[in-house]
Amino acid sequence: MKNNSHGLKNISTIVLNKLCAYLEISQQGKEKTLIQKPAEEIAELLQLEKWVKEGGLDPVSTNLFMDAYLANSQHLHHPHYMGHQVAVPHVASGIADFIHGVINNPMAIYEMGPSAAVIERFLINWMLEKVGWFKGTHLSDFRNLKNNGGGVLTHGGSLANLTALSAARAAIAPEAWINGTPDDLVVLAPEEAHYSIARSISIMGMGQNAVISVPVNTLKVMKPEALLPLYRKIKADGKKIMAVVANACTTATGLYDPLDEIGHFCEENNLWFHVDGAHGASALVSNTKKHLLKGIERADSLIWDAHKMLRASSLCAAVLFKDRKNMERAFQQKGSYIFHEKEEIGFDTLPYTVECTKAALGTKLFWVLAAEGEKGIANYIDNTYNHTHKFYQLIQQHPDFTCLCEPETNILCFQHTKFRTDNDFQLAIRNELIHKGNFYITSTELNGVRYLRLTIMNNLTKESHIKALLDEIIEVAKSLTP
Amino acid sequence: MKNNSHGLKNISTIVLNKLCAYLEISQQGKEKTLIQKPAEEIAELLQLEKWVKEGGLDPVSTNLFMDAYLANSQHLHHPHYMGHQVAVPHVASGIADFIHGVINNPMAIYEMGPSAAVIERFLINWMLEKVGWFKGTHLSDFRNLKNNGGGVLTHGGSLANLTALSAARAAIAPEAWINGTPDDLVVLAPEEAHYSIARSISIMGMGQNAVISVPVNTLKVMKPEALLPLYRKIKADGKKIMAVVANACTTATGLYDPLDEIGHFCEENNLWFHVDGAHGASALVSNTKKHLLKGIERADSLIWDAHKMLRASSLCAAVLFKDRKNMERAFQQKGSYIFHEKEEIGFDTLPYTVECTKAALGTKLFWVLAAEGEKGIANYIDNTYNHTHKFYQLIQQHPDFTCLCEPETNILCFQHTKFRTDNDFQLAIRNELIHKGNFYITSTELNGVRYLRLTIMNNLTKESHIKALLDEIIEVAKSLTP
Repeated sequence: MKNNSHGLKNISTIVLNKLCAYLEISQQGKEKTLIQKPAEEIAELLQLEKWVKEGGLDPVSTNLFMDAYLANSQHLHHPHYMGHQVAVPHVASGIADFIHGVINNPMAIYEMGPSAAVIERFLINWMLEKVGWFKGTHLSDFRNLKNNGGGVLTHGGSLANLTALSAARAAIAPEAWINGTPDDLVVLAPEEAHYSIARSISIMGMGQNAVISVPVNTLKVMKPEALLPLYRKIKADGKKIMAVVANACTTATGLYDPLDEIGHFCEENNLWFHVDGAHGASALVSNTKKHLLKGIERADSLIWDAHKMLRASSLCAAVLFKDRKNMERAFQQKGSYIFHEKEEIGFDTLPYTVECTKAALGTKLFWVLAAEGEKGIANYIDNTYNHTHKFYQLIQQHPDFTCLCEPETNILCFQHTKFRTDNDFQLAIRNELIHKGNFYITSTELNGVRYLRLTIMNNLTKESHIKALLDEIIEVAKSLTP
Repeated sequence: MKNNSHGLKNISTIVLNKLCAYLEISQQGKEKTLIQKPAEEIAELLQLEKWVKEGGLDPVSTNLFMDAYLANSQHLHHPHYMGHQVAVPHVASGIADFIHGVINNPMAIYEMGPSAAVIERFLINWMLEKVGWFKGTHLSDFRNLKNNGGGVLTHGGSLANLTALSAARAAIAPEAWINGTPDDLVVLAPEEAHYSIARSISIMGMGQNAVISVPVNTLKVMKPEALLPLYRKIKADGKKIMAVVANACTTATGLYDPLDEIGHFCEENNLWFHVDGAHGASALVSNTKKHLLKGIERADSLIWDAHKMLRASSLCAAVLFKDRKNMERAFQQKGSYIFHEKEEIGFDTLPYTVECTKAALGTKLFWVLAAEGEKGIANYIDNTYNHTHKFYQLIQQHPDFTCLCEPETNILCFQHTKFRTDNDFQLAIRNELIHKGNFYITSTELNGVRYLRLTIMNNLTKESHIKALLDEIIEVAKSLTP
């Protein structure tokens, strides 16, 4: 394969045809969602050793390679994909990835991709406006206005959480960057916070002991009334609260913490309020769902993954700040070869991200919006949330099943309860389902109890698919029961 | 634009044609490398507000959008691109991005992309073999053998450095994850270490004061003989060395630290040795250049960016460990909804990365290798390194120019010295060059002195292009001299 326009055209055309066929079959719900072979077998099928040693991929072999590659992929476009919370990507996002891959404009330095840099900054303004943190006159207003929010796109929600927490630390302990983190800082988070919160705190050198669990109800939703006594106790212990973290929504159940009450408490006590909206912040785009995020404008920082409910391929996550100055404080490092070496004609995001080289992340989201418009995205969110509620009623009414709770989002936890309700049985059902490969769902644990878990990421998932899923679970449950 | 195979085919075909034309014109050295317009103007040209609000991208508007988008991009395929160290991507890497974007298989959990997961693990074996850390019988040997190396691909070198340093911390202070980092740890690094090293240390809560500069020569290459006295002093001060960091190569000058001597010292004193090979580790693929990395197998950890000299589009970085067990210690967090919920049929990289959702990074590098074979990559590295040495001789011999030093890699620092040698003048030359847009080069500072800086990332860059660059610099220098 030649590294020129002929090579690109010849091979891309073959790949495009394969992708179109894959898409069609998947969207029609044909074939399996996942066939999971052992790694050694896949390596053999893909002839990895040969290609790496010898090269020489050509049209004929590309055809064969693509067949093997796609056959051993997860089929997210299939209406039976109801698994992890990653986007069933809009095809427009794939086109953005294609452009990025061919031209490689890593725009964290404006010069390295002006178009891509402008698109990212524009989308940050769009997101800030949805949160209520944008003070410009129109979305192309790129001035760093006083009291304006700020934000940056980064490679994933975990990195976004790490960035937000670094900013929170810089705000309460500005000397930490130079002298190290003082050992009296703690972070309050509900136990259902995404693992990247606690992981960030450990990466940041504070240790797991610095994460204090905020009391939650039986569904793991934060009790805002528990904050004040906790705050008093921490103060009495001589510790300082670096941040209060809330979920919007939780990964396991998809329930939102009461942001307004938590925000009010943080304002009253001058505490940094961070919202992990990786999954649920997208509801801000929907007029009928944004009430779930009431009070979010009280937060100091927010993360929001576009590679979940905004249909961008992974990764494309935003970390947003109510006050841009806080973003500027998160990282304070300089490098002479890259900073301050040129006249400023645009803007560099480099100082505000962990990444030095960064991909053109904004273009993924932009292409989805350019295809669908923000109304199209709002419809998608409404549909997935509303469908999930319908599916909840369907499952809840079925004599063999019980749902954990009424869903607020597109995440739904349930159990097959006809024969056994124990964890091993639910896990065994899930494993057998995956083994059969007709459906892809996940599972989760809450209060020590294992649930089957659906995330409806696909607009094509209809009631008939859920009925077929329940039938398959019933069959599997029978087969597992002696 | 429809989210189905018709939509994908219609719009991709237009985009592909535009990319082919862009590639052809760029590779032929036509038009400018960079036209850098102000952000507001680009936002207007791209009609961002309209697309985000209304959507509806169709074939006609895609054509217009692509023209505006590509015109305001950095043209890395142009032989006059000699700027930052990001890949002039092989077009095969763009095809990998296209596939990822359409099917979105974030394979950090095996189930979410078996093909992509296997490719990543295979390439990690390939890289480990180049370093001398692979103990398997063939590259598809995925067993976790005793004393085998380990590694993972991550979104960029900065994140890779952070991961390696987290592992170094876990090795010397296993309790840090739970109790916080002890305050007696320091890291030794030459002052020319990439800014992400010091930044990682601050993110990790240790503060800049924990970074101790190792003495270097006038070209900022580490003096290994300086390590022992420094080590004794640090010990006498009651501090512990968490890691010794070396550059392979430095960002500014492209010179390699003497890894063998540093490795020997670290072995003698039982210290963690980390090599930042983001740019220069790729020379391991070349039989004629790998001597520059002599002793690298003595390291405990190594980072290696495939989105630099291995021609993958950004991002695709590896963090590699001599001992896989050290990788497993870097992060210790658990999350019940994602870990341990299934039978293990393949392997998950999730526990070893900062990222939870991760893109199919390995496929970018794999496609380049499948196109070129490892010999093709070796030739590319040889060529760029050898060409740079020729260009050095050419520039050095020119009466108007002086080079900083003989280059070891494809990075070259020089000055126009006919009229003035001061920093402002060199910067003014660079700024005016960028303004004209015919060439893209960078600049760097060493010992307080500003140099113009080339990185030869493009095989198409020939002597004639360098002569044209020198002519343009001479003209610019004249125009800046009253």
